Parts: sequence; structure tokens; C-alpha cells
Amino acid sequence: QSAHEFQSHRDSLTQKLQDTETRNQTLEAQLSDLEQRLEGSQLEREAFRTSLRSLLELLDTKIFELTELRDTLAKLIEGS
Amino acid sequence: QSAHEFQSHRDSLTQKLQDTETRNQTLEAQLSDLEQRLEGSQLEREAFRTSLRSLLELLDTKIFELTELRDTLAKLIEGS
Amino acid sequence: QSAHEFQSHRDSLTQKLQDTETRNQTLEAQLSDLEQRLEGSQLEREAFRTSLRSLLELLDTKIFELTELRDTLAKLIEGS
Amino acid sequence: QSAHEFQSHRDSLTQKLQDTETRNQTLEAQLSDLEQRLEGSQLEREAFRTSLRSLLELLDTKIFELTELRDTLAKLIEGS
Repeated sequence: QSAHEFQSHRDSLTQKLQDTETRNQTLEAQLSDLEQRLEGSQLEREAFRTSLRSLLELLDTKIFELTELRDTLAKLIEGS
Repeated sequence: QSAHEFQSHRDSLTQKLQDTETRNQTLEAQLSDLEQRLEGSQLEREAFRTSLRSLLELLDTKIFELTELRDTLAKLIEGS
Repeated sequence: QSAHEFQSHRDSLTQKLQDTETRNQTLEAQLSDLEQRLEGSQLEREAFRTSLRSLLELLDTKIFELTELRDTLAKLIEGS
Repeated sequence: QSAHEFQSHRDSLTQKLQDTETRNQTLEAQLSDLEQRLEGSQLEREAFRTSLRSLLELLDTKIFELTELRDTLAKLIEGS
């Protein structure tokens, strides 16, 4: 091969390498962004579930209080 | 005693007896009225209590349904 | 009429009057007893109704608290 | 430069390009995987929210039925 052909082939390789590295950086940025969104989504989901658990405890309390009210009514009906 | 005194005394007794019998009839009417009111009051009270028992059963159903809803929420929170 | 007949009639009237007065006293005692029972029954009924009114207020509070819980759940579902 | 140096430089570039392309494929696979997980997570979240909306409607119904029960009790107390 002539020196000119070597040179031309090397330039082509160098250009392709640069393009691939640029694409690489883009992919890594996208990946990092997606990972952050997934993590954010999981944190949000956990926070949501924690709020729902508080609500469930509150609902338990209300059901318990309605049951007490029910027992009071039953005693009133039978006792009077 | 003279016949006239006898006659007067007898008339007085007859009058008193009539008054007392009239009073008797009034009292019996009042007693009958009160007995009917007391019986009516007891029937009313029993009907009231029957209505309250229906309400109590309905409340039991509602508490049961709220408990089912609560269990569904608990499963949703843990299962998802 | 002979004096003896007058006497006999008078005794009969006196006896009847006494019986009627005794019956009167019995009726008045029964009436007084019934009046007290009716009054007691009305006081009891009023006390019962007062207890039921307290229960109704408690039920109002529980329904209000369940409605608040419902609103919190609605906000959680839409906001997250 | 000698022909040997050219050759050596070209080989080095070729190797580097291969490594970068391999890294690229790995990143694209990771990205695709993450995108699917994120999409799956959003579908799951939407299904969860749909279930919670059904639950909210059921809770509305129960609150409505408790309010009707409350009104029946109020009428019983005042009407009797």
C-alpha cells in the first residue's frame, strides 16, 4: 500500500472512532437520566405507599370507632 | 226518731251513694284510659326498638363492608 | 212502712256506701300507681332518646372523618 | 514514519474502535432494558391508581349509605 492509502485509512478510522465515542457519551447521558428517573419514580412510589399506609391506619381507627358506636347502640337497645 | 228524720237521713245516704258511684265511674274511665295509654306506649316502644334493631343490623353490614374495603386497600399497598 | 223496714233499708244503704267508698279508694290507688308508671316510662323514654342523640352526633363525627379520609385518598391518587 | 509505525497505529485505532462499539452495544442494551422497566413501572402505577379509584368509589358509596342510616336514626329519634 502507498503511504497515501495508509493515511486515508487512518483518518477514516479516527473519524469513525470519534463518532462512536460521541454516540457513547450521548448514550451514557441518556442512561444516567433514565436511572435518575427510575430512582425518582421508585422513591415517589415508596412515599405514595407510606401515605397510603397512614390512611389505612386511620381507616382502621374509624372502623374501630364505628364498632364501639355499634356496641353502644346494641347496649342501649337491649338495656332500656 | 220521727218518720221525718228517718226519711231525711235515707235521702242523704241515697244522694251520697249516687255521688260516690258517679265518682267511681269517672275513676274507672280514667283508669281504662291510662291503661290504654300505657299499653300504647309499650307497643310504640317495642316498635321503636324493632326499628333500632334493623338499623343496628344495617350498621353491622356497613362496618363489615368497610372492613372488606380496608383489606382490599391493605392488599393493594403490599401487593403492588 | 214500719220503723223496722226503715231501719233495714238504712243499714243496707250504709253498707253499700261503705263498699263503694272502699272500691273508690282502690281505684284511686291504682290510678296513682299507673300515673307514676306512665311518668316513669316517659322519663325513661326521654333518657333513651337523649342517649340516641349523643350517638347520632358521634355518628355524624365518624361520617365527617371518613369523608376527610376519602378526600385525602382522592388527593393522593390524583396528585401522585 | 515507517510503514511499520503506520501499521501499528492503524491496529491500535481498529482495536479502540471495536472496544468503543462493544461498549456502545452494551449501553444500548442497558438503555433498552431501563426504558422497558420504566414503562412497566408506569403501567403498574397506572393500574394501581385505577384500583385505588375503584376503592375510592366504593368508599363514597359506603359513606353515602352511612349517611342514609344516620338520617333514618335521626327520623326515628325525632318521630317516635
